[in-house]
Amino acid sequence: MSEHTRRIVLASRPQGLPTADNFRLEEAPIAALQEGEILVQTRFLSLDPYMRGRMNAGASYAPGVELGEVMVGGAVGDVVASRHPNFAEGDVAQASIGWQSHGVVAGDEARKVDPQLAPISTSLGVLGMPGMTAYFGLLDVGQPRAGETVVVSGAAGAVGSLVGQIAQIKGCRAVGIAGSDAKVDYICDELGFAGGFNYKTAANYRKSLGALCPDGVDVYFDNVGGPVSDAVFTQLNLGARVSVCGQISQYNLERPEMGPRQTWLFITKRLSMRGFLVFDFAERYAEALHALAGWLREGKLSYREDIVDGLENAPAAFIGMLQGDNTGKRLVRVS
Amino acid sequence: MSEHTRRIVLASRPQGLPTADNFRLEEAPIAALQEGEILVQTRFLSLDPYMRGRMNAGASYAPGVELGEVMVGGAVGDVVASRHPNFAEGDVAQASIGWQSHGVVAGDEARKVDPQLAPISTSLGVLGMPGMTAYFGLLDVGQPRAGETVVVSGAAGAVGSLVGQIAQIKGCRAVGIAGSDAKVDYICDELGFAGGFNYKTAANYRKSLGALCPDGVDVYFDNVGGPVSDAVFTQLNLGARVSVCGQISQYNLERPEMGPRQTWLFITKRLSMRGFLVFDFAERYAEALHALAGWLREGKLSYREDIVDGLENAPAAFIGMLQGDNTGKRLVRVS
Repeated sequence: MSEHTRRIVLASRPQGLPTADNFRLEEAPIAALQEGEILVQTRFLSLDPYMRGRMNAGASYAPGVELGEVMVGGAVGDVVASRHPNFAEGDVAQASIGWQSHGVVAGDEARKVDPQLAPISTSLGVLGMPGMTAYFGLLDVGQPRAGETVVVSGAAGAVGSLVGQIAQIKGCRAVGIAGSDAKVDYICDELGFAGGFNYKTAANYRKSLGALCPDGVDVYFDNVGGPVSDAVFTQLNLGARVSVCGQISQYNLERPEMGPRQTWLFITKRLSMRGFLVFDFAERYAEALHALAGWLREGKLSYREDIVDGLENAPAAFIGMLQGDNTGKRLVRVS
Repeated sequence: MSEHTRRIVLASRPQGLPTADNFRLEEAPIAALQEGEILVQTRFLSLDPYMRGRMNAGASYAPGVELGEVMVGGAVGDVVASRHPNFAEGDVAQASIGWQSHGVVAGDEARKVDPQLAPISTSLGVLGMPGMTAYFGLLDVGQPRAGETVVVSGAAGAVGSLVGQIAQIKGCRAVGIAGSDAKVDYICDELGFAGGFNYKTAANYRKSLGALCPDGVDVYFDNVGGPVSDAVFTQLNLGARVSVCGQISQYNLERPEMGPRQTWLFITKRLSMRGFLVFDFAERYAEALHALAGWLREGKLSYREDIVDGLENAPAAFIGMLQGDNTGKRLVRVS
């Protein structure tokens, strides 16, 4: 067993889009296990847009990563030592290990993963945080009803691709907005979306949406914000719901972007909009996992993983993801 | 009985703030009463910000007034002829009569007003649409809980002044934003608001709010939109609710104003925001009237009327109200 962990720490805070300089790969000794802790050797590290917020000084909904500290992140791997009664050497655990090859975590805050059920990488995707984010954000916050039109931005991403499929499971028509023609083909051809458009080439988002949503939009699941969302707002129906999951178009801005004020639409259309974090639903994770695993077994949910090899490549993979170069769930294979 | 009605029609559509030229005073014959109709001689006409939207071509939540047609508006007056079983000559009726001295309306769409209960003008204010707007918009949409801080913009207006008082009845701390020092004095000294500031003179809305709301803001009742609302958003607490009632700062703009994008706050603070119209709650008007009349009787609700004499002065009174020159409910005494 290694006595050191290879890890990526925050070397400096980004101005705008992060660069390789903001990260540093280093080795560090592994701390001795305390009672209740487990040592996990990472197999897959999850890369997610929320990590950009943690690179800033100060708290957003959670404190930022300190300079010189390991980057935060969910990971899954093998338990190589345990002082927690629920975990034995050889078990597979999913936990907030960070960007490193080995991590010591509290067993109470780790989840045991059954490798017989599904590939263990799914514990970071469809059967993990992205799956639960899609589940609660669409069903609880968005409140879709059968026959309605659900629009999702970031539609080919880990969360968006599941949102569109869960919408269809619930009898809705799913329309996606994504950042390449290949992504649009993917959501339409493989995931059953009724339509989609590429926001990087579309000349008029409003027209594109109007053509794809002739009956308007009843639920908007927003991963991106900015001009894409401005356009969706103009197409919302009376009583439409907006579920705010992410605002990836805004994360790298150094100051708030300006946009057209559209609050008046809330009155004329009686809109409701609510932001959420998946952690708000922690007490109901079991419900979501049960539903998601069932749909996966029944072949109703399809997912794609976008795997990059090597911890040392995590920074570039993360920077690329912030620019939309992934389709489906981006993971780093660490060992 | 007069055979003619004096009325104010829409002469032209405004560009920005309406001007006197947009209105025309004229006489017109009164139509013969059909079965089910009543003829009402107007005593008080209500002036309300929503009327600005109706002066535009095309529909917002309701169709615009056509050129040459009488301006829409709620009014209260004496029934001078009736072909409806519920109304007799001499009754007092509140209905959508428009800006005119006499109006023929369907008896089914009129409300009988008991002049013994309260001055009949209150049927256009605290016991009318503004009262019910405050009641449902605060209690149903805003969901205030005892001990919370409620901020209302347009705080000295017909709706805002009631919102702050109902908030106090429910055990909340009310803070108001208004457009003059006299209005701020009024809401604090006469209506019991815990504090307020004048947005026309405050140098930094955010700082003013921060000082007035040391525990943050739990419910924001928005009548105005624009930079005032931008500032309130920065002070909202985790799980705060925003009730969107009006956006008077935006009504006279010829194109959408730009503002800082703040949707990210919906995620970090798990905000929810909902727009409403009082008509959405039509089935529960009796509940609201019962509560409002009770509070009025118990001396828990105070109101102020800002009465302008003469139908011919309605346009100037309306234009002034859009610029905030009223305190409390603006009415026109027509006869």
